[in-house]
Amino acid sequence: MDEDVGPGLTERHLDELRARVAGSPFHTWAGLELISVGDGLAELGMDLRPHHFNPQGIVHGGIITAVADTAIGLALRSKLRAGLTHRTAQLNVHFLAKGEGGRLVGRGRAVRLGQRMGYGESEVLDGTGQLLARASGTFIVLPAPGAF
Amino acid sequence: MDEDVGPGLTERHLDELRARVAGSPFHTWAGLELISVGDGLAELGMDLRPHHFNPQGIVHGGIITAVADTAIGLALRSKLRAGLTHRTAQLNVHFLAKGEGGRLVGRGRAVRLGQRMGYGESEVLDGTGQLLARASGTFIVLPAPGAF
Amino acid sequence: MDEDVGPGLTERHLDELRARVAGSPFHTWAGLELISVGDGLAELGMDLRPHHFNPQGIVHGGIITAVADTAIGLALRSKLRAGLTHRTAQLNVHFLAKGEGGRLVGRGRAVRLGQRMGYGESEVLDGTGQLLARASGTFIVLPAPGAF
Amino acid sequence: MDEDVGPGLTERHLDELRARVAGSPFHTWAGLELISVGDGLAELGMDLRPHHFNPQGIVHGGIITAVADTAIGLALRSKLRAGLTHRTAQLNVHFLAKGEGGRLVGRGRAVRLGQRMGYGESEVLDGTGQLLARASGTFIVLPAPGAF
Repeated sequence: MDEDVGPGLTERHLDELRARVAGSPFHTWAGLELISVGDGLAELGMDLRPHHFNPQGIVHGGIITAVADTAIGLALRSKLRAGLTHRTAQLNVHFLAKGEGGRLVGRGRAVRLGQRMGYGESEVLDGTGQLLARASGTFIVLPAPGAF
Repeated sequence: MDEDVGPGLTERHLDELRARVAGSPFHTWAGLELISVGDGLAELGMDLRPHHFNPQGIVHGGIITAVADTAIGLALRSKLRAGLTHRTAQLNVHFLAKGEGGRLVGRGRAVRLGQRMGYGESEVLDGTGQLLARASGTFIVLPAPGAF
Repeated sequence: MDEDVGPGLTERHLDELRARVAGSPFHTWAGLELISVGDGLAELGMDLRPHHFNPQGIVHGGIITAVADTAIGLALRSKLRAGLTHRTAQLNVHFLAKGEGGRLVGRGRAVRLGQRMGYGESEVLDGTGQLLARASGTFIVLPAPGAF
Repeated sequence: MDEDVGPGLTERHLDELRARVAGSPFHTWAGLELISVGDGLAELGMDLRPHHFNPQGIVHGGIITAVADTAIGLALRSKLRAGLTHRTAQLNVHFLAKGEGGRLVGRGRAVRLGQRMGYGESEVLDGTGQLLARASGTFIVLPAPGAF
């Protein structure tokens, strides 16, 4: 990790990040809960409801992707110092097994952070720990005074 | 296109596909409307509401991805004959501009269909026609007696 | 395209770019010839020789990828003004048909250029015009005084 | 892993696979050596020579991609039983650091194998162990009597 983009958020900023996710209309609507975040890692959960499934009875790819994208984004966010922000530039997802069951868990990890770009990976599991998807993403890092 | 996976759905099957999307809990919840489908092309629309945006005021990547994925899937579906089904194996999305405005449009296109795999592309635009994202995906083709 | 990264290379710089590719040890070794470049487009050719094929008699994926990557990179390069350089951050390639025949053609296109990132696409065809692969890539844009 | 695509190659088949790579015109020309293969893992090495670098003095993306693709392909190959073959359908590569130094090492891993598709990942390191790239790929699995 580059020194000048780190060392990541302080505990006070992480608390504010948790509150922001908890109060976000998107996250509430989608059913995404933040389980943990910090030090380049993030874990999310989602209780599955009937509207998360496609007509074939499989969790919709868009739902799995939202979990995968958010997990990488928060993992990277926790490693960027305050005053910088990030935006997803590219996301690649491999769907490895059908999501059935009642719950999704997403785990993201920051792998590389530079002054212009970040790279992270995530995986999405079902409630029994079966691997449903693996994802990787490229993020733009941007100055954003006051942001975190 | 391989002869044996085509020639695609008849008008009667396309009508049933439109009805299935219109009645799908996922599509209704997400706000996805099917504008047109047939002959390897599909177009979708989505009116944006506050819960589609992330805390930075940008349409969430998961929403754009759901539009992109669904557009490719329906485009491929329209080219597969009845008795076959498909499932997304991999999806890659490039986010090119911030989604703001009030509406998303997704346009999907089947590029290649074989007996085991399909490949398609899509783009997502805002209501003014600005390009927000480009996506490409790999799909497994599976026998599914009675399905379409 | 952002004003401040364009308007791209002048004819004199394009001539130097052509000379640089023609004299590059990598391009010579790989067998890559630059057919045309300018205004956000690039076309490359490659005469296939036995060492370009894998043991199954199919053009090796790494060869197709080298053509696809180089075509996007040169297309973007032609749109960036002198004083900036670029580097591939991510490349996604879909292999759609077996490369056999005697020649590959790669066509790249710059789709979006900003101050931090660029995005482009390419396709690789065989000598008869059959589509072998489609690729998309994310590029970092970097200041590089004197470079083009 | 599905039972019916495994349990992978026997030691005798692995020996033949090593001999095939050692005798392959592509691998010899590219400079790829197979260090180890078996049980869903593969490791490759490449001594870098001037023609592997682009005009900016960085290892060409096509070279890194050839190492990444071959590493995943051989890892999957080692897990497929004789009588099946595989072909790359899609490959996504993230370039994380400039390749300089004198050697590349590629490590591939089979993550998921089914009757129609396989999925694997690889990483490319330089001679000092620095991470240069991470890759993931989708492979078609095909019946091929007599092949391995």
